[in-house]
Amino acid sequence: MRNLTEANVTEMAARSFAESKSDRFEFVIANLIKHLHAFAREVKLTHEEWNTGLQFLTDVGHITDGRRNEFVLTSDILGLSALVDLLNTAPGATQGSALGPFHEADAPLLENGASLVRNNEGEHVVIRGRVLSVDGQPIAGALMDFWQTAKNGLYPQQDSDQAPDNLRCRIRTDSDGSYCLKTIKPGGYPVPYDGPVGALLRAGGRHAWRPAHFHWIVSADGFQPVVTEVFNAEDPYIEGDAAFGVRESLVIQFTHKDSQEEAARFAVTNPFFLVNFDFHLQPLASAHKS
Amino acid sequence: MRNLTEANVTEMAARSFAESKSDRFEFVIANLIKHLHAFAREVKLTHEEWNTGLQFLTDVGHITDGRRNEFVLTSDILGLSALVDLLNTAPGATQGSALGPFHEADAPLLENGASLVRNNEGEHVVIRGRVLSVDGQPIAGALMDFWQTAKNGLYPQQDSDQAPDNLRCRIRTDSDGSYCLKTIKPGGYPVPYDGPVGALLRAGGRHAWRPAHFHWIVSADGFQPVVTEVFNAEDPYIEGDAAFGVRESLVIQFTHKDSQEEAARFAVTNPFFLVNFDFHLQPLASAHKS
Repeated sequence: MRNLTEANVTEMAARSFAESKSDRFEFVIANLIKHLHAFAREVKLTHEEWNTGLQFLTDVGHITDGRRNEFVLTSDILGLSALVDLLNTAPGATQGSALGPFHEADAPLLENGASLVRNNEGEHVVIRGRVLSVDGQPIAGALMDFWQTAKNGLYPQQDSDQAPDNLRCRIRTDSDGSYCLKTIKPGGYPVPYDGPVGALLRAGGRHAWRPAHFHWIVSADGFQPVVTEVFNAEDPYIEGDAAFGVRESLVIQFTHKDSQEEAARFAVTNPFFLVNFDFHLQPLASAHKS
Repeated sequence: MRNLTEANVTEMAARSFAESKSDRFEFVIANLIKHLHAFAREVKLTHEEWNTGLQFLTDVGHITDGRRNEFVLTSDILGLSALVDLLNTAPGATQGSALGPFHEADAPLLENGASLVRNNEGEHVVIRGRVLSVDGQPIAGALMDFWQTAKNGLYPQQDSDQAPDNLRCRIRTDSDGSYCLKTIKPGGYPVPYDGPVGALLRAGGRHAWRPAHFHWIVSADGFQPVVTEVFNAEDPYIEGDAAFGVRESLVIQFTHKDSQEEAARFAVTNPFFLVNFDFHLQPLASAHKS
């Protein structure tokens, strides 16, 4: 490649990985190079802009640690995370959405129907629904991992006033696939606006807010797990999620209930909100075929 | 964008920067998103691969410091740096090539014709040529910033046995645009192979070697400066530069000279190598028009 030119550099670079032992790796990296170069060609990227881009990545790298992943955030605000979620959702299965940085693997395993309200301020919410296969069969014993913000929009990791396990748990579905959880309305929050991603958002005239949401990871033996978020239709940022996490199928109505009888039935304080959401999982075998 | 779908997510993300005050920023970021998404779509990027990519960037960020810039290296081995150099070379001007991480702004200003050999081991080389405008007019007083490796393939920053200014200097061209420098043959070297870029190269079955080269930055009032490298045609890695820095126009013959008379004329030890290389600079005004 002594005769490298503007015309052949892309092919030369893409072909340079041809000795890889993995066909998939070779395919992915060759395409990464092809599209990265197509970008540089289309905008006729200058040295100054190239430097700015590398400095952005350096800044993102230096602010990223075990607690804050600014690369994930970069992917989120560019819509890449959403695209990967959407590309990898099987037809009929619940659509995926951002995992985010606040999941903890070892949330307490509670009884189905448990309450997470405890001493949290906020409006009470009953969430219920079922976990089903894409063909509508109930999935018994599905593991549902749940976490959310407090009313102030903070996760326990960001808020020393919350216990580490506040507003997070795991439950298992009943034999008919049903689940129920009592909690409070989560608070919306801005993604970190004080780092390089914040600067990028500001440069684009963009705000940093995400609509409030419940996080779920739903898994069951023999099924592809779903990592997703569920949003309140009435949230002021439902049309403008900075992280592109909202999809129509994940937006739910928080139905206001003012009935002592219903409140008693769910063992919550009246009034409260009732939300229904069913999850649909793709069997692993057909997921592998897709 | 509550109704985000696989079909519209790219347009939604690209349009999200539309409130930018800079048309150029908006154009660049919208195209970055378009091409990044096209890559993810073309390979149907999985969550696992997305995670691997973000972990790679995190590792690159964490190994990058004031002394080692693994992001520049990533750009180099993907051919992006070369493409940016090639896209930004004016017709007729000397082609650019990698700056690399070992340039120091304050190299000693020496007399034109100076020798950098001192106590360096290695074969002696006389480099000479002229700095010209793209229309062939000599440029007097052009500033030529020069640096290279010792015979062992190391720069002073990597080798405590070398003085900080070893094999680096700045000189100015004479009134006829000519320059001359006496030095030793540089040693080739591998790019860092112990970090994430090394792992990426190995995954692609690629070596890390760069052919030996002289680094130059040539600048003059009223002209676009050139950052480039000049390579020895006989180098064993001339056809396989891991950093894609070689271009045909930057490959020079090291002509072996065995003549006491010529050696005496250049005040070097016989035998020696003679290399000729002219630089061509683009006037700033027309560079801005291009």
